[in-house]
Amino acid sequence: MKNIAILGFGTVGSGVAKVLTENRAEVAAGAGEEVCLKYIVDVRDFPDSPFAPLLVKDFALVEQDPEVSVVVETIGGCGVALDFTRRALKAGKHAVTSNKQLVAEHGVELLALAKGKGVNYFFEASVGGGIPLLRPLFNDLSANKILSMKGILNGTTNYILTAMDRSGMELEAALKEAQRLGYAELNPDSDLDGTDAVRKTCILADLAWGRELKPERVSVEGIRNVALKDIRNASAAGGSIKLLCRLLRGEDGLCYAWVAPHFVPAESMLSGVNEAFNALIITGNMVGDTMFYGAGAGSLPTASAVVGDVIDAVRHASSPRGIGWTGEDLPLGDPEELSSRWYIRNGDTWSLTDALPAAKVPAAEAKYRVLD
Amino acid sequence: MKNIAILGFGTVGSGVAKVLTENRAEVAAGAGEEVCLKYIVDVRDFPDSPFAPLLVKDFALVEQDPEVSVVVETIGGCGVALDFTRRALKAGKHAVTSNKQLVAEHGVELLALAKGKGVNYFFEASVGGGIPLLRPLFNDLSANKILSMKGILNGTTNYILTAMDRSGMELEAALKEAQRLGYAELNPDSDLDGTDAVRKTCILADLAWGRELKPERVSVEGIRNVALKDIRNASAAGGSIKLLCRLLRGEDGLCYAWVAPHFVPAESMLSGVNEAFNALIITGNMVGDTMFYGAGAGSLPTASAVVGDVIDAVRHASSPRGIGWTGEDLPLGDPEELSSRWYIRNGDTWSLTDALPAAKVPAAEAKYRVLD
Repeated sequence: MKNIAILGFGTVGSGVAKVLTENRAEVAAGAGEEVCLKYIVDVRDFPDSPFAPLLVKDFALVEQDPEVSVVVETIGGCGVALDFTRRALKAGKHAVTSNKQLVAEHGVELLALAKGKGVNYFFEASVGGGIPLLRPLFNDLSANKILSMKGILNGTTNYILTAMDRSGMELEAALKEAQRLGYAELNPDSDLDGTDAVRKTCILADLAWGRELKPERVSVEGIRNVALKDIRNASAAGGSIKLLCRLLRGEDGLCYAWVAPHFVPAESMLSGVNEAFNALIITGNMVGDTMFYGAGAGSLPTASAVVGDVIDAVRHASSPRGIGWTGEDLPLGDPEELSSRWYIRNGDTWSLTDALPAAKVPAAEAKYRVLD
Repeated sequence: MKNIAILGFGTVGSGVAKVLTENRAEVAAGAGEEVCLKYIVDVRDFPDSPFAPLLVKDFALVEQDPEVSVVVETIGGCGVALDFTRRALKAGKHAVTSNKQLVAEHGVELLALAKGKGVNYFFEASVGGGIPLLRPLFNDLSANKILSMKGILNGTTNYILTAMDRSGMELEAALKEAQRLGYAELNPDSDLDGTDAVRKTCILADLAWGRELKPERVSVEGIRNVALKDIRNASAAGGSIKLLCRLLRGEDGLCYAWVAPHFVPAESMLSGVNEAFNALIITGNMVGDTMFYGAGAGSLPTASAVVGDVIDAVRHASSPRGIGWTGEDLPLGDPEELSSRWYIRNGDTWSLTDALPAAKVPAAEAKYRVLD
């Protein structure tokens, strides 16, 4: 039997508690032994929760309990979450997280710490929520040179863009609806500005190419300027406007990374990815295109991925996986130099250009790359 | 360094040799050590192949060579392939295969043999070719109860159905074109009759539910009776006719397994899966729907999955994964009793019924379940 502790009893943390309880038999079968939830660490009180007896306020209890083998961090951010993760790894505990910011900004340090201690640090849920993405990338597709990745990895903005299309709302109204329904947070900046998508882009690049891509090096344009008009134009052509994460490896060895709204033609499998769903197309030099699709957020889907990591950590407790990347900067090219067709609009008139680098695209009220 | 041998130098076997050679650095990075191709066993001569120096005719050379750690079986069928796999496992070598027939019919025995010898027996490429499917199912999604799976897992029939739609050909003509282009074999029976799809359905059920589903227990209807008319009708409604593998777990604990042409509405992500591509939707009780899409066949995509397994086998050489299922029969219900809407056609008139079990569907020249 292995004991685990959850740090942070919010949306994801409470989902993890639920998955461990309701799917106890599946978890034990996967892990090869029982997985028992011993503590939940949160500064808040949850007197009405069935998990109330497990709640503690002091992380030191977990840190100092040799019976706790795996720590699940679902606090978010890089403050307490970083401190607790460091301390858990230093105490020789495996760590699992859904915290994309922590992995994108401190992955090199935390993975090195895990390696030094002979434990696992897993973060499948940090990109694509419940969709198996990272393990397929570094495991199933490991016989490939990864040539490119492109995907919809922010459910909030995809929900907003879908709602604008379906209900004929401008962005502000769609955002309000998304907030009301719980698809967007009260402070939606990191979603709307593309920051969240950038973090996920970085984690994918780190794993695929083995060097670090720091978030501040990724070109980013959020969705704040996407007008209903543009969505209607794309829709009339059978396609859609989607916020895409793009990663390419050029033949010169340079990588290109950017996040921006794109005009996605009907032929692309990504054009049918709607609402809060996520999808990623990974292109390998042997396998060609593979696509992974599913729920990119939400309590239980995200918890499914977190608990999958817990199971893997338990099963490989004595032979950690040793994933990781170096702290050396990934060599980057300027995506502005990459040619593609562009959607351009002035007033009510729109068209698609021939393949052009960004600097040659005519001035326009709206311009978005066409996904090829 | 680990040495490996390929058994069978056909489409997949030669792809494996190519991946190991061209992506040598990626393979070594994934495996944590060099992976060296030492033998290729085939009764045929390949004097012009760059791999000619590695070709041997006698499997006993591989069997008796203690330097060979992993054997890749790409012979196909259950004759020599079964004999060689048994002998390789008995000799303490890890085995990897793309042979769905062997796994579906003899998986219980071969996995038990591997377990007894403390080695891995992997077969990711046997379902969905290059698409990561099996490892996500038993690994990433292991925190879930698997509720259902539905997918397009035979590229040949999907190519034929797509060609009929796009070129307005009847099945016979589309089959001839598929044969000319290498998408169908000269003897296409196992594809057209659904036998190949049944084998893949069995492997998915075995892994998801831990008991054996023998191929002869799966209800099957191939595509031989699908008329251009039906495809055109589906297409006019925005959907398509697809040969689907279906697996469901009822609340009574009974499972339902069948392979048949379906009317797939436009809203389903499966309706956009065309040509020789494959896709599978796995539904877990926590993650909801996840879809996996990509090249379901072909030399290099299939080899990508095979070499991914080789890498995993090498990395876990000292701690085999212990996947498997018991020889006990999976408890099955009769899919005829499951209600769904149906597409029915008589002459040129077609319609969709309300939800009905099979016995209540009116007599018709063509009737296919509607995917819900």
